[in-house]
Amino acid sequence: MFRHTKLLQFEAKPERPDPYYARKLQELIGGAYGEMTVTMQYLFQGWNCRIEGKYKDLIMDTATEEIGHVEMLATMVARLLEGAPATATAEAAQDPVMAAVLGGMDPQQAIVAGGGAVPADSNGTPWNGKYIVASGNLLADFRANAAAEAQGRLQTARLYNMTDDPGVKEMLKFNLARDTVHQKQWLRAIEELQADGLESDIAPGALLDEEDQTHNNTIWHLSDGPDGNKGTWSTGEDRIEYLMDPKPLGGPGSAPKPDPELYATYSPTQDAMGTVKGKAQSAVNKVT
Amino acid sequence: MFRHTKLLQFEAKPERPDPYYARKLQELIGGAYGEMTVTMQYLFQGWNCRIEGKYKDLIMDTATEEIGHVEMLATMVARLLEGAPATATAEAAQDPVMAAVLGGMDPQQAIVAGGGAVPADSNGTPWNGKYIVASGNLLADFRANAAAEAQGRLQTARLYNMTDDPGVKEMLKFNLARDTVHQKQWLRAIEELQADGLESDIAPGALLDEEDQTHNNTIWHLSDGPDGNKGTWSTGEDRIEYLMDPKPLGGPGSAPKPDPELYATYSPTQDAMGTVKGKAQSAVNKVT
Amino acid sequence: MFRHTKLLQFEAKPERPDPYYARKLQELIGGAYGEMTVTMQYLFQGWNCRIEGKYKDLIMDTATEEIGHVEMLATMVARLLEGAPATATAEAAQDPVMAAVLGGMDPQQAIVAGGGAVPADSNGTPWNGKYIVASGNLLADFRANAAAEAQGRLQTARLYNMTDDPGVKEMLKFNLARDTVHQKQWLRAIEELQADGLESDIAPGALLDEEDQTHNNTIWHLSDGPDGNKGTWSTGEDRIEYLMDPKPLGGPGSAPKPDPELYATYSPTQDAMGTVKGKAQSAVNKVT
Amino acid sequence: MFRHTKLLQFEAKPERPDPYYARKLQELIGGAYGEMTVTMQYLFQGWNCRIEGKYKDLIMDTATEEIGHVEMLATMVARLLEGAPATATAEAAQDPVMAAVLGGMDPQQAIVAGGGAVPADSNGTPWNGKYIVASGNLLADFRANAAAEAQGRLQTARLYNMTDDPGVKEMLKFNLARDTVHQKQWLRAIEELQADGLESDIAPGALLDEEDQTHNNTIWHLSDGPDGNKGTWSTGEDRIEYLMDPKPLGGPGSAPKPDPELYATYSPTQDAMGTVKGKAQSAVNKVT
Amino acid sequence: MFRHTKLLQFEAKPERPDPYYARKLQELIGGAYGEMTVTMQYLFQGWNCRIEGKYKDLIMDTATEEIGHVEMLATMVARLLEGAPATATAEAAQDPVMAAVLGGMDPQQAIVAGGGAVPADSNGTPWNGKYIVASGNLLADFRANAAAEAQGRLQTARLYNMTDDPGVKEMLKFNLARDTVHQKQWLRAIEELQADGLESDIAPGALLDEEDQTHNNTIWHLSDGPDGNKGTWSTGEDRIEYLMDPKPLGGPGSAPKPDPELYATYSPTQDAMGTVKGKAQSAVNKVT
Amino acid sequence: MFRHTKLLQFEAKPERPDPYYARKLQELIGGAYGEMTVTMQYLFQGWNCRIEGKYKDLIMDTATEEIGHVEMLATMVARLLEGAPATATAEAAQDPVMAAVLGGMDPQQAIVAGGGAVPADSNGTPWNGKYIVASGNLLADFRANAAAEAQGRLQTARLYNMTDDPGVKEMLKFNLARDTVHQKQWLRAIEELQADGLESDIAPGALLDEEDQTHNNTIWHLSDGPDGNKGTWSTGEDRIEYLMDPKPLGGPGSAPKPDPELYATYSPTQDAMGTVKGKAQSAVNKVT
Repeated sequence: MFRHTKLLQFEAKPERPDPYYARKLQELIGGAYGEMTVTMQYLFQGWNCRIEGKYKDLIMDTATEEIGHVEMLATMVARLLEGAPATATAEAAQDPVMAAVLGGMDPQQAIVAGGGAVPADSNGTPWNGKYIVASGNLLADFRANAAAEAQGRLQTARLYNMTDDPGVKEMLKFNLARDTVHQKQWLRAIEELQADGLESDIAPGALLDEEDQTHNNTIWHLSDGPDGNKGTWSTGEDRIEYLMDPKPLGGPGSAPKPDPELYATYSPTQDAMGTVKGKAQSAVNKVT
Repeated sequence: MFRHTKLLQFEAKPERPDPYYARKLQELIGGAYGEMTVTMQYLFQGWNCRIEGKYKDLIMDTATEEIGHVEMLATMVARLLEGAPATATAEAAQDPVMAAVLGGMDPQQAIVAGGGAVPADSNGTPWNGKYIVASGNLLADFRANAAAEAQGRLQTARLYNMTDDPGVKEMLKFNLARDTVHQKQWLRAIEELQADGLESDIAPGALLDEEDQTHNNTIWHLSDGPDGNKGTWSTGEDRIEYLMDPKPLGGPGSAPKPDPELYATYSPTQDAMGTVKGKAQSAVNKVT
Repeated sequence: MFRHTKLLQFEAKPERPDPYYARKLQELIGGAYGEMTVTMQYLFQGWNCRIEGKYKDLIMDTATEEIGHVEMLATMVARLLEGAPATATAEAAQDPVMAAVLGGMDPQQAIVAGGGAVPADSNGTPWNGKYIVASGNLLADFRANAAAEAQGRLQTARLYNMTDDPGVKEMLKFNLARDTVHQKQWLRAIEELQADGLESDIAPGALLDEEDQTHNNTIWHLSDGPDGNKGTWSTGEDRIEYLMDPKPLGGPGSAPKPDPELYATYSPTQDAMGTVKGKAQSAVNKVT
Repeated sequence: MFRHTKLLQFEAKPERPDPYYARKLQELIGGAYGEMTVTMQYLFQGWNCRIEGKYKDLIMDTATEEIGHVEMLATMVARLLEGAPATATAEAAQDPVMAAVLGGMDPQQAIVAGGGAVPADSNGTPWNGKYIVASGNLLADFRANAAAEAQGRLQTARLYNMTDDPGVKEMLKFNLARDTVHQKQWLRAIEELQADGLESDIAPGALLDEEDQTHNNTIWHLSDGPDGNKGTWSTGEDRIEYLMDPKPLGGPGSAPKPDPELYATYSPTQDAMGTVKGKAQSAVNKVT
Repeated sequence: MFRHTKLLQFEAKPERPDPYYARKLQELIGGAYGEMTVTMQYLFQGWNCRIEGKYKDLIMDTATEEIGHVEMLATMVARLLEGAPATATAEAAQDPVMAAVLGGMDPQQAIVAGGGAVPADSNGTPWNGKYIVASGNLLADFRANAAAEAQGRLQTARLYNMTDDPGVKEMLKFNLARDTVHQKQWLRAIEELQADGLESDIAPGALLDEEDQTHNNTIWHLSDGPDGNKGTWSTGEDRIEYLMDPKPLGGPGSAPKPDPELYATYSPTQDAMGTVKGKAQSAVNKVT
Repeated sequence: MFRHTKLLQFEAKPERPDPYYARKLQELIGGAYGEMTVTMQYLFQGWNCRIEGKYKDLIMDTATEEIGHVEMLATMVARLLEGAPATATAEAAQDPVMAAVLGGMDPQQAIVAGGGAVPADSNGTPWNGKYIVASGNLLADFRANAAAEAQGRLQTARLYNMTDDPGVKEMLKFNLARDTVHQKQWLRAIEELQADGLESDIAPGALLDEEDQTHNNTIWHLSDGPDGNKGTWSTGEDRIEYLMDPKPLGGPGSAPKPDPELYATYSPTQDAMGTVKGKAQSAVNKVT
């Protein structure tokens, strides 16, 4: 169960409105790597965690924090939209700055939300549940978490460079910091999983003996770039072998004889070219 | 530019049809962590890579391989559907096994694809472009790649346990192996990026000095689990500090005075409870 | 900012596993009227609320409760999946009950979530941000809230009839109760908005004098059912007028002459039938 | 079965083109509360209505009208795009007004539709079937209808303030009027359902005696706003009780022991912190 | 403007309920090539048609018919669901037929629609506006129409083979017939466009002289199948040339130097392998 | 299996950056008729093709080429974005051209992709698997292919007119040429299918004798346009009959008596108007 305080985790006060930037900030709310994603990803991971204790508690601590990040960003967006020229017509544009703002604004923040944030990204694509993963396997999931925090921090860093507003920058400095520590904590938790003997370095640690031992340590040179084997991954004792001229291992890909009642194009008497031999099949392609 | 051979990278021959399993395999084709995802993720990363040489070549080698994985799986699905009771009515079910198959089949594999694979997951949700990421930052992207391969291998391992068919298992052993080596290669490439001095351990390595130094090394104890600080992440010299009773740093979250032409509910004379004081505002909520 | 306790708002303990039912319960988690919807709808409404006090506080109380409802349902789903025949092959089905379960299970709860809930509905369609509305206008939004709670309670009632498990029914009785009181509270809050003079009975209360007065009180009889005017809405002093034989008020719908550089099919010399008169236009349809 | 006349229900003639506004109007065509939504919502409700007569006939009258509203808006959009600078390059922008128009236009109206409307909203998100509801329960559905008309009228009112074009405003006055009467008719029909004894004030009227009687009349104070109980909903005889310090009723949320073949992270010998006791489990996390 | 009669275009009466088949029929309602698609495709094409007369009138005749097809199918689905075991638990399955039905039913037809059709396909994926095209170019659009009717008839034919119910088959015979004539009419209309000199055989007929004349009549042999040039398309005077060993015409694909403020991984001093030469760049990858 | 060369199929070098145009080009990458669509459509058709030889080989040749088209366009987009004012604030706009560019740019190309292409269209909607079709029936699929190439060429032609950049135009001339030949090849392959006796002119050629012979050659005059029968489709010996005043063939559309446990609104004693007769049903709408 959850409780809420009206106080924000960190202040979210822009110095002045900036409706175009309010659109861009949507990426951090409802984008694939926005705060709604980490909120829901961590919540479902926590609820689906099969091992009580430190891991689950760390997940739930972080999940609960992230709901508050959505809150900070939604508040910031509403404030950036204060006094926005929502109902200005294009004809009213008097100067290039206004023109850029008018052209670049998110019309749904005005028409749909009345001057507030929406659960969507900077192009208006709605957030969806496929952005998250909660597999029950903590190694696989903590990798996904570290990756999500990395993409999130990267996008925050880019947005940090897109504004001069001291109030916005102040909040983004806090967000950058939280993304840094969250990256670090998931990387540390991965080490801990391995130290605890719960997971190996490959996720999942299962079936490693059953998987195809001939093909689990080779890079296939399938693009003609000459340097794919110049990394240290291709050198040393534990190197991954680089197959310079790999050949297909399977036969030709082909689909089987079709079910006649599904009407795939087919002839029982076709030759290799697909031409019908002898008595031509009727134009009705149902094979009898 | 690409070229194609009809030969599959690895054989994809089931011993017998299994239409229900053909549905489940869709997860590895068009699911969020299926082969379409890694194909497109690596292709866009390669095309968007800003640094020529070993990293880009490794990405393109792997991307090109993954297209062939979609091909193997699509071929396998078509073969698993051979002779499937696509047009059997429910009344035709004579035994429980058939009933389970009929109930569990993907109707679109028959109705839409005529007995073949579709670019969708095991519940029929179509693959979409938001499943991938290609940010230009290789640390952030390789983390995402290692995470994708981990989830992909995990799902493959689960599916491996859901079949007894030796032909299917043979192919999945190959897939497991490729997922293992791909995980390994991205982890190694992350180390290489750091060894080359191109990226640090936090993505992106930028703005680390500008970010909020007070809050980039603390875990906020916001869920009441008692063990969030029991990991080694909370011990030692480089520990992340655990705030046992963190307080909000910001003021109350509130939205500014609305634009009257957008008709948000508001009264200029409301008291703290939202009740209008003195002369009641007209029912028309446009503030004049 | 939010805080979390590990204790559930209400107990979520099924008496026995039921994996098919676990799929159906997904509708209450990630369906269009599931708990993720009301959670996000109320959160965004609260953050975007322009009038401090009783309305906003009520919204935030309810929003915070709803996060905990997602938690209860996700927990229930994981428990219903305990011991589910996730890796049983169709061939393993020994009796009709098992067959129905196998056929009807959600494969992604096993393959993707490892035996847990996913942020999707009972057909696997992911939850998305378009399910919610937060317009800033409280009358419009409270109507949407009452409607959402009504659909939610209706679906819960249907699901209540689909199980015999006493533990599941116990939790659903709680959910039904909460949906009842939430419906009631939004209906009461609508009355309060009107009593406070903040909104009228039509949302928004604006532009009522400017809108077309001739057409704001008529039902157009456009389907040939004979009873559309038999309700009390068509009787009494404040009746809505029923136009028995309404005529179109506009001219023909037609699209203007196209931009030649966009290559819409068009001929400057066509007659009314679309046939080109005199010198035939060249096959190149660019108008010169 | 349907019939169509070329005449529009109301005139849709702008005085002059306005391509930026043509983008905004897309919200009323293909947005979540646009005319495609009410068209399809009412059609499916009518087709799924289980009670012949006045309710069904009213639904079908309105559904049929709404198809004509999509037609009016699509016609208006095509006309607003006449002579639009669809193929102007950014370099051709000579003044701020043109710049705002160029920046703000919907590129798909030109590239995809050749200067016409698309079945999408003002950010290009396609309309989808999840926007509608047709549950068979008329109380729940009429609530949804009144809510949809409220949001639709609100968006129309906002768009009315975003244009000065007399032709556009004339049509929107008609739309506002229709949204007003449609709101009214659904509210009246809700009263009628109750007067007819078909539904109560809570939807559905079923299971009210079986639901949890202890928790169907309480608001849980879970956010720290002080005014959630200051509305009249918390006063009087039929007040909803306000729980000032509500406690969780359930035990801790936890997920059960996982299926070993699904490889969730787990150890049979872990302690409360998640640390493995005694003999460390192998790195392979399959529980044997 | 539209009008509606309660009479269906054709009878839609199944002999007996078949809830599993009711799920499959959803493909013809809300699938990519279902009746909602042709309805909306033709409506938007008609509204966006730039040439008055025979073409537009044919489009609108057909569009209006298709709305009635959605109606027939939605009615059929509701009737197929009559008496469906919507609330039967899996445990209640007593025989394999019931098991197949239970496992294969669409749970949303019961939970969401109360025993009726939904605007979604046979896997529950909602219909969306991207399924349709209305480009303004009639040749391009009539090709899309003929293709849509072909896929639609194909799916109808497959579904025809999946039922034994005489009532369902009777209606599907009508649907098959309508799909046949609609295919024919669009093919005939394509010939007419060409006869009228409005379009050529390539869509659009524009820019044919400006396009690259060297590469507009060659097939590139990029897959190693030996028979790609064995069709008559590769023989005769107007043959398409088959390039047996085509070479890339462009230089290497590469992305330009990145914007340093967007933090793509890059080093100004890297060598061809991506290794940094000389003084290593700091771990902070911002280029200064 | 696939192989890749770093050389592009055709050069993709713009003369100068144009970030607004880079957004528009997204339509050709990830739009419904962009290169990702034809890539995946042809790949799945090839993998699902049931007839070996010339048809399948042609499909795979073309599929393999299309992957390279996505590559060319992604490369072009990255180059058009070089030096884009990604991090310029709106306030920095100094002239209308810059304003139009700023307003019209795709923010995700910067924030998400770091200055590169994304798998989405010009409004940011992600590409999805429902854009493609691979039915197994080659006539139906080749029609879809010819239609896709027609829409693709049309969009390319429109985009050709939206730029003055010689480098961009050079590449688009190549794309136009490839779209021309691909249209031609699918049209020729359709003729070949018929010449080979594999398919007729209607897809599928099956069930033509079983379909309703009374209604497979009539156009229903359901819209009041007077010219729907003025095409040659309505003249000559093989004309399609035009029904001037068609009547519905079915009875009234109605839904059956509902399942009481699903709580659709219903009364066993209602009259034709929906009013309950005699003893009013209780407000609880469960029918007993």
